[in-house]
Amino acid sequence: MPVLVLLRHGQSQWNLENRFTGWVDVDLTAEGEAQARKGGELIKAAGLDIDEAFTSVQTRAIRTCNLALDAASQSFVPVTKDWRLNERHYGGLTGLNKAETAEKHGEEQVTIWRRSYDVPPPELAPGGEYDFASDRRYKGAALPSTESLATTLVRVLPYWEEAIAPKLKAGENILVAAHGNSLRAIVKHLFAVPDDQIVKVEIPTGNPLAIELDADLKPVAARYLDEARAEKLPTVG
Amino acid sequence: MPVLVLLRHGQSQWNLENRFTGWVDVDLTAEGEAQARKGGELIKAAGLDIDEAFTSVQTRAIRTCNLALDAASQSFVPVTKDWRLNERHYGGLTGLNKAETAEKHGEEQVTIWRRSYDVPPPELAPGGEYDFASDRRYKGAALPSTESLATTLVRVLPYWEEAIAPKLKAGENILVAAHGNSLRAIVKHLFAVPDDQIVKVEIPTGNPLAIELDADLKPVAARYLDEARAEKLPTVG
Repeated sequence: MPVLVLLRHGQSQWNLENRFTGWVDVDLTAEGEAQARKGGELIKAAGLDIDEAFTSVQTRAIRTCNLALDAASQSFVPVTKDWRLNERHYGGLTGLNKAETAEKHGEEQVTIWRRSYDVPPPELAPGGEYDFASDRRYKGAALPSTESLATTLVRVLPYWEEAIAPKLKAGENILVAAHGNSLRAIVKHLFAVPDDQIVKVEIPTGNPLAIELDADLKPVAARYLDEARAEKLPTVG
Repeated sequence: MPVLVLLRHGQSQWNLENRFTGWVDVDLTAEGEAQARKGGELIKAAGLDIDEAFTSVQTRAIRTCNLALDAASQSFVPVTKDWRLNERHYGGLTGLNKAETAEKHGEEQVTIWRRSYDVPPPELAPGGEYDFASDRRYKGAALPSTESLATTLVRVLPYWEEAIAPKLKAGENILVAAHGNSLRAIVKHLFAVPDDQIVKVEIPTGNPLAIELDADLKPVAARYLDEARAEKLPTVG
């Protein structure tokens, strides 16, 4: 039975500063690096042989992927990087401090942007500091200017179907090292989580979530490898 | 004009212990990690945008590749790992201390094995500690049991032609993070170095060798990015 391991990147500098990060390419903190290595050690201790890994084109997820594979003594595993596994694009909120944003727009509005399923933040103004149109890693991609969790799913799931699901169906064990919301998209899809429930699913950073799948890629078992830091999982089966 | 950057992995634990390493998957030392990061900083300082990277399936080269891309702020670059970029397979000498081997077989014989172009060491005994047949990263590959530099070329060059050369011809800048002898194979091919000269070409560890190529992939210029640690290059043009 193939195993899918979902690994959320460890702490980044902007997690610390409590800013809306989205697509800004901030790096891991030393603590975030340690979390990624710990994740890899847990994969190794669980005896999991990863056949292929997928990550975003954002440094914090890529480095989490590489550090985890190194710590699992599986550096040689092929890694594919794709922007469709990126974090949710926070549009015009990108780079703003969360407290300041709440002062400006009201706590309630910010909660709606952060926690609603399908209300996107304002669009990113083109040409500004956080306009990614000229970033060469996105050349040729149809980039969003803002995303809700719902529109994040709209770009994550086709990639899932096209690149990742066929490998699992072929029996491969897959690691996806990505972000809170791109991983939510996958969890929502696999566990059929309702729209109003998925925003409450919190995947802890650096704690590999191992999901055993059947031949139709339905979850038959799921567990966090670091049980002490496990969060509640969607119901399986 | 496309640029090819060749980067030899930094110091490994067995470099320190002066043992024949070949395909044994030893890791970088802290010094080797620093060399890899330095290599990446030099790539960044040179203003080189890498489009794709290639490395072996050996941890010391993969980690050199990843650390260099991280330090160059180019972690998002696609990386392909292939065993055909591995170090030369040292056959029955694998794991032996070089001084002890010289005592046993004579200095002259060891020099022949290390420095001749086409004399392979004795074959690796199957089933021993360093038999890689059961290592899952080599599943399906037709593995050598020993290699001379000549037979190393025989597996490196088809991979070069099939995977790397077409990308350069398409105008991409390519990083190859690999090993002393797989890089020698590429240098011999590009610069048409005679058999008896190539073993004298020493590529320093962690010092990116940037080679500008014309449309037929003939070198038109070549330089080490760390000039203070540059070694003599084959003649260009």
